[in-house]
Amino acid sequence: MTVEVPKLIAGLERGERRALARLLTVVEDGDPARLREVVAAIYPRTGRARVIGLTGSPGVGKSTLTDQLATKLREQDRSVAVLAVDPSSPFSGGALLGDRVRMQGHHADAQVFIRSMASRGHLGGLSFATPQAVLLLDAAGFDDILVETVGVGQSEVEIAATADTTIVSLAPGMGDGVQAAKAGILEVADVFVINKADRGGAGQLESELRGMLEMGHALEAPPPGSDGHPDGDDEDRDSSDVEVAGATGQGAWWPPIVRTVAVRAEGLDELAEAVDDHLAFLDRSGLREQRRRDRATHTIREIALEAVRRRFAGLDASDDVVLEDLAAQVAARELDPYTAADRLLEALEDAG
Amino acid sequence: MTVEVPKLIAGLERGERRALARLLTVVEDGDPARLREVVAAIYPRTGRARVIGLTGSPGVGKSTLTDQLATKLREQDRSVAVLAVDPSSPFSGGALLGDRVRMQGHHADAQVFIRSMASRGHLGGLSFATPQAVLLLDAAGFDDILVETVGVGQSEVEIAATADTTIVSLAPGMGDGVQAAKAGILEVADVFVINKADRGGAGQLESELRGMLEMGHALEAPPPGSDGHPDGDDEDRDSSDVEVAGATGQGAWWPPIVRTVAVRAEGLDELAEAVDDHLAFLDRSGLREQRRRDRATHTIREIALEAVRRRFAGLDASDDVVLEDLAAQVAARELDPYTAADRLLEALEDAG
Repeated sequence: MTVEVPKLIAGLERGERRALARLLTVVEDGDPARLREVVAAIYPRTGRARVIGLTGSPGVGKSTLTDQLATKLREQDRSVAVLAVDPSSPFSGGALLGDRVRMQGHHADAQVFIRSMASRGHLGGLSFATPQAVLLLDAAGFDDILVETVGVGQSEVEIAATADTTIVSLAPGMGDGVQAAKAGILEVADVFVINKADRGGAGQLESELRGMLEMGHALEAPPPGSDGHPDGDDEDRDSSDVEVAGATGQGAWWPPIVRTVAVRAEGLDELAEAVDDHLAFLDRSGLREQRRRDRATHTIREIALEAVRRRFAGLDASDDVVLEDLAAQVAARELDPYTAADRLLEALEDAG
Repeated sequence: MTVEVPKLIAGLERGERRALARLLTVVEDGDPARLREVVAAIYPRTGRARVIGLTGSPGVGKSTLTDQLATKLREQDRSVAVLAVDPSSPFSGGALLGDRVRMQGHHADAQVFIRSMASRGHLGGLSFATPQAVLLLDAAGFDDILVETVGVGQSEVEIAATADTTIVSLAPGMGDGVQAAKAGILEVADVFVINKADRGGAGQLESELRGMLEMGHALEAPPPGSDGHPDGDDEDRDSSDVEVAGATGQGAWWPPIVRTVAVRAEGLDELAEAVDDHLAFLDRSGLREQRRRDRATHTIREIALEAVRRRFAGLDASDDVVLEDLAAQVAARELDPYTAADRLLEALEDAG
């Protein structure tokens, strides 16, 4: 499509960081033709990296935690890419500044790559762009990809859930603990971190969290009193002889709660170990393949929806039915929004 | 479609709260046929309420602030509906419990209605359901509708942005202020609240916020040094003689920063006044009509996208091309996700 993309992909294959950075900009800009070209070219080279999601509310110290986990993984001689996804910032300028600040701790290390991503060109936002950025980092050959995202909204939880292992981070004293540890976050957590654990309230937060986990299991698991993780019940009957950290038996996964003080690099060994344990559990149970299929489903659906959104936008530019006109009629109460949506979809089919 | 819906709508028209509650459940459940019936029936009765969005990170005291603002509006003899949108909770049980707790302050007052909404049946989540719930509350005749949402992700910011006036709430000591006041939140804010303003750090947070606002304007407004709000520049040249709170001149809107201590009901007069001022500004400048057209556009697009998502889901159940099969091929690297998305869309067109 463009002369530039094949060159960049050749650069990516030679391990050039600059080519990777420019390809990530292609993903961020969201031009569909270029994106398609990039993803089709790199796709066969993907599927090797461990993808680790890290989510939590603003103020729990996610950035520091991510950086420290990256440092820990580097000590294990693994190459690490950090993708800091910021759904609340439409500006990449600030994101890039953030990258520069954050790179300082790792700037001498070619095996660490840090990139912030904000929603820019693409209509579908970061739930569309993130999986494709992960594919790029995977194709670039990183052993581990840390996807850090502010985890409050449903779409951000979804982003984290496209990882192999999702770490949910909390901190004492952030409003009330129960509010921070909402059910949607509980559902996606494979590992919990209580960061800033040197603060008062860490013990109480952990108790609340355990209470919510037990209540969640009691609500969801078919037989009350069963200790199986609802997601793991069917797949892991064969692994009952294996001991895993945080598991309560039967090979099911019960998310461990790890305490850290990221600013002092405390608890990071335990966190890295919990991640290893969870990934080993995924492999044993067959859930890793399941999660990768789920991730593929998510990616396909988002790409298809993005295409539909673009068709809607394209209709705006045509002479026939225009979303803007429909909106004016709806705003004037001349048309109800469902009838307007029908007309939009009809116009789409006629145009396609 | 169902015998029940016309009865409920008749009840709504008679001002019955129980009918309203049950219709909101129809919205929350997301059955497309029933939703369509409800929205088409009520739509002509909508468009009268003031819609006020209130957003902020967890822990800033949004619920208390919303409740206190509702109390203040009641003192002005306005009827108030509160829609507490929680994108992080998939459970409505907790939401209902929360409603009961929150209703206690207003339980004797028939002119206050409080409802939490979690994402349940609908695939499109709360950015699909929220505008339709707002329509219902509007049709029920409330003067003011307060839409409270956790505002961190893009979709939540979008929900807030469908309001006439969006209040962004912050608090000192929630991690660092700059992180909390991300650009995406700055963009949608019509009014800022610094809640818990009796805490240390309120002054610093306000300074940071003013700095970010000035930087944002310098980045976005065409001539640096101009004091026009980017959204208001074109529409409000005629209102240069009007003084509005928080405006810097030329009739443009500069979001005021209001300090509150919601638990002690402090600063609520100022907040209610800032909301009035902003709504008056919207009317004068013609932006209110623009926002209502934008909201209609958003609603139509979300309804159409939801229909497309349902068609994707419907394909899963058919014998032909199945998203699950495509995902398995993509996960096995036999197919790239763009080609898979093409096939999904082709299958959709064939089925349609």
